[in-house]
Amino acid sequence: MNRLYHYFLCPSSRLVRIILSEKKIDFELFIENFSDPSEEYLLKNPAGFFPVLNTSFNQNIVGALVIVEHVENLMLSPVFLKKKNENEIRRLLHWFEYNFKNEVIIPLLREKIFKRFNKNSIPSSQTIRTARSNLKYHMQYFNYIIKENDFFVDDTLSYVDLFYGSSLSVLDYIDELNFFDFEKLKNLYFIIKSRPSFKKILADRIIGVNPPSNYYKLDY
Amino acid sequence: MNRLYHYFLCPSSRLVRIILSEKKIDFELFIENFSDPSEEYLLKNPAGFFPVLNTSFNQNIVGALVIVEHVENLMLSPVFLKKKNENEIRRLLHWFEYNFKNEVIIPLLREKIFKRFNKNSIPSSQTIRTARSNLKYHMQYFNYIIKENDFFVDDTLSYVDLFYGSSLSVLDYIDELNFFDFEKLKNLYFIIKSRPSFKKILADRIIGVNPPSNYYKLDY
Repeated sequence: MNRLYHYFLCPSSRLVRIILSEKKIDFELFIENFSDPSEEYLLKNPAGFFPVLNTSFNQNIVGALVIVEHVENLMLSPVFLKKKNENEIRRLLHWFEYNFKNEVIIPLLREKIFKRFNKNSIPSSQTIRTARSNLKYHMQYFNYIIKENDFFVDDTLSYVDLFYGSSLSVLDYIDELNFFDFEKLKNLYFIIKSRPSFKKILADRIIGVNPPSNYYKLDY
Repeated sequence: MNRLYHYFLCPSSRLVRIILSEKKIDFELFIENFSDPSEEYLLKNPAGFFPVLNTSFNQNIVGALVIVEHVENLMLSPVFLKKKNENEIRRLLHWFEYNFKNEVIIPLLREKIFKRFNKNSIPSSQTIRTARSNLKYHMQYFNYIIKENDFFVDDTLSYVDLFYGSSLSVLDYIDELNFFDFEKLKNLYFIIKSRPSFKKILADRIIGVNPPSNYYKLDY
């Protein structure tokens, strides 16, 4: 059985859960501490980032982007990486994995969630403001690249749209969703959030941190 | 004709030049400002990192890891990614692209090279010391994963060894090479540095920044 070592509010962990579910690959979930990974986890991935997929052959596949390449090689439907768009899809996967996560999601998680469980730390409103202004910059860029398409890369759903959805679902949980009036980006998020593969993820709850009431809704 | 937009002392740019040369793919070089990319470059890659390969079909392929996947699809010899090792090879490519570059190379380049061309800035000896101690940590890890193998992943040369060589050749140029008595890592560097694909790279010179005299030698 495949085992996925993940964290509930990690967008890359959510992406992998969604992909495995879309491709109908069975797996078991094992939760890990995102802000302070266990020694056992660091043996699987010394770089410490999330997630790790431990396959039924006991091989550790480290990180969402390497897991995506592994899953691609299994040639399962549905198709999320069309040959003609593969360079652009991979470029944007890197964008979500590194730029969007590090400039928007991790700072907000650190200030709003992790510090809540650490009695001696106070959230920095400066960091929160910077992350929110970074979000605006990213959303403007996303709006620019989507252009007249239905989805990020062309008119078909790709891994990029799933990563966009998984990333925004984390912001949604911590009440930091903001579409800055980009109607198309808003609609796209709700289309992706409505997929059956998102159902389990939206049911996750962190003890002591409740999502806003709108989080349950598939359109608002 | 393929055009590679690169920077002389960027390890990822050097990796792509080496791979294209090993696979006998023709390309022209266009140098860009690494620490302050031009607007034209940012249109090709808004994230600003290096390099970008502009193909003969005028498609921009952004970043070394996406370029590696593109080249892999061309199925050219020699083989640097064996199917059975592909997850481990990709994991280590990410390690060099993000961890090693950001924790060792970029801080040293910034303090020792880029600040030299900026009259109002003083190199931080604290940052240099931290980067050097990070290098030791990375080399210990590399020594641990190589084990009894001839190369990083098994006994055959892979993309990982080329990335190791291209990264160390940058440290070599700025006189920051240190093997911390790991003989195997030292030998591996000189084996890779002796490959014909490294020849052009070792001939590069930055005006105002000369490499140490040992840089020319293939063993010392």
